[in-house]
Amino acid sequence: MRFDIITLFPDFFVSPLNSGLIGKALAKEIATINLINPRDFTTDKHHKVDDEPYGGGVGMLLKPEPIFAAVESLEMLPRKEIIYMSPQGETLNQNLLQELASNYDQLILICGHYEGVDERVCQHLVTREISLGDFVLTCGEIPALTIINGVVRLLPGTVAKQASLKAESFETDLLDYPQYTRPAVFRGWEVPEVLRSGNHQAIAQWRKEQQIQRTRDRRFDLWSRWHQQQD
Amino acid sequence: MRFDIITLFPDFFVSPLNSGLIGKALAKEIATINLINPRDFTTDKHHKVDDEPYGGGVGMLLKPEPIFAAVESLEMLPRKEIIYMSPQGETLNQNLLQELASNYDQLILICGHYEGVDERVCQHLVTREISLGDFVLTCGEIPALTIINGVVRLLPGTVAKQASLKAESFETDLLDYPQYTRPAVFRGWEVPEVLRSGNHQAIAQWRKEQQIQRTRDRRFDLWSRWHQQQD
Repeated sequence: MRFDIITLFPDFFVSPLNSGLIGKALAKEIATINLINPRDFTTDKHHKVDDEPYGGGVGMLLKPEPIFAAVESLEMLPRKEIIYMSPQGETLNQNLLQELASNYDQLILICGHYEGVDERVCQHLVTREISLGDFVLTCGEIPALTIINGVVRLLPGTVAKQASLKAESFETDLLDYPQYTRPAVFRGWEVPEVLRSGNHQAIAQWRKEQQIQRTRDRRFDLWSRWHQQQD
Repeated sequence: MRFDIITLFPDFFVSPLNSGLIGKALAKEIATINLINPRDFTTDKHHKVDDEPYGGGVGMLLKPEPIFAAVESLEMLPRKEIIYMSPQGETLNQNLLQELASNYDQLILICGHYEGVDERVCQHLVTREISLGDFVLTCGEIPALTIINGVVRLLPGTVAKQASLKAESFETDLLDYPQYTRPAVFRGWEVPEVLRSGNHQAIAQWRKEQQIQRTRDRRFDLWSRWHQQQD
């Protein structure tokens, strides 16, 4: 997988992409990351990337020309998606991450800033708008980092045992069950007896019950969807 | 606002916290960030922070002792919340960010890793579990960065004009309207006539209509909630 990140702050990505499991995956070249600054594609002497919105309003917008030029400078693979991260997009979820990981060889991620980008970027350049959730951040770099992490995690070779991807939250439409490790008793709080029983059938049943109960208690929306599929 | 981040990868945060608007806000001491590594609170000679789950299963869990010790080493302010970032938590949204920014002076963010943390951390230490969304990442550092960005953005002094916070997505339950900047014509695509008219009433009306239409087309769930409140 090739990621091309269109960002005014390429330095933002340095330390996160060198950390943890994703750092290791990139070192193994499971994915490559290419950082492109639209400021390098300005043609005026002040390297101006933003301007005031038509019709008034506070804040600045990213101009269309440097973003079009930055994206059009890239080598394009046949299976690509040009994504703009914005609260107006479709909401990110595990199915969408799975689709991006499976169906594409190149993800071009445009990071917004200030009040966002000129609408012509969304209409005529971008093939997909994705939202991290119903909240506002100062920049698109964090949403882009989220997509990189969630997609690279699904690529073969990143997570040692592929089985550990399967049973997790959202791949079964239920939240995860509670997990415990040593010590068996910590400050008087014990690990549930069943988990120490060695009875694999009882453990599997307890975990499934915990998943269902926890999902119903905490996320009635997910539980309802799961429950309908059981009939 | 004081953030204490409990993380096995403190280096992860270096470049994001030095970038853009948040970098400037931290330089102005609008918020302070304190990074604490639970590995520094282990008592065995191998500095072991993880162990296998009781009852079997792939992957490792974070042990309870180093996390309790790391959190308990902190100076605590009266208005604090101890947050664990996990897909099992309540879903982050703009109201929750607003609440965190308004009601607390200290946010302690525990970043999970591997398969997560021992459940006793959630039951007996954490006061709130928050989820970034219905998807799985390799680590809690990206969700923590999201909370820091979204909360610091709301603190007085971070965004130059407080008015620019008010009109944005989700603070009105509607998506944002399309925005345009110069040039008026780019590759034959024109900025809508009304935005260049100078007629402020017509512009305000066009924008409101665009917000409603776009929210109905893209996010029927948000539109329905908004529509009910109009009666």
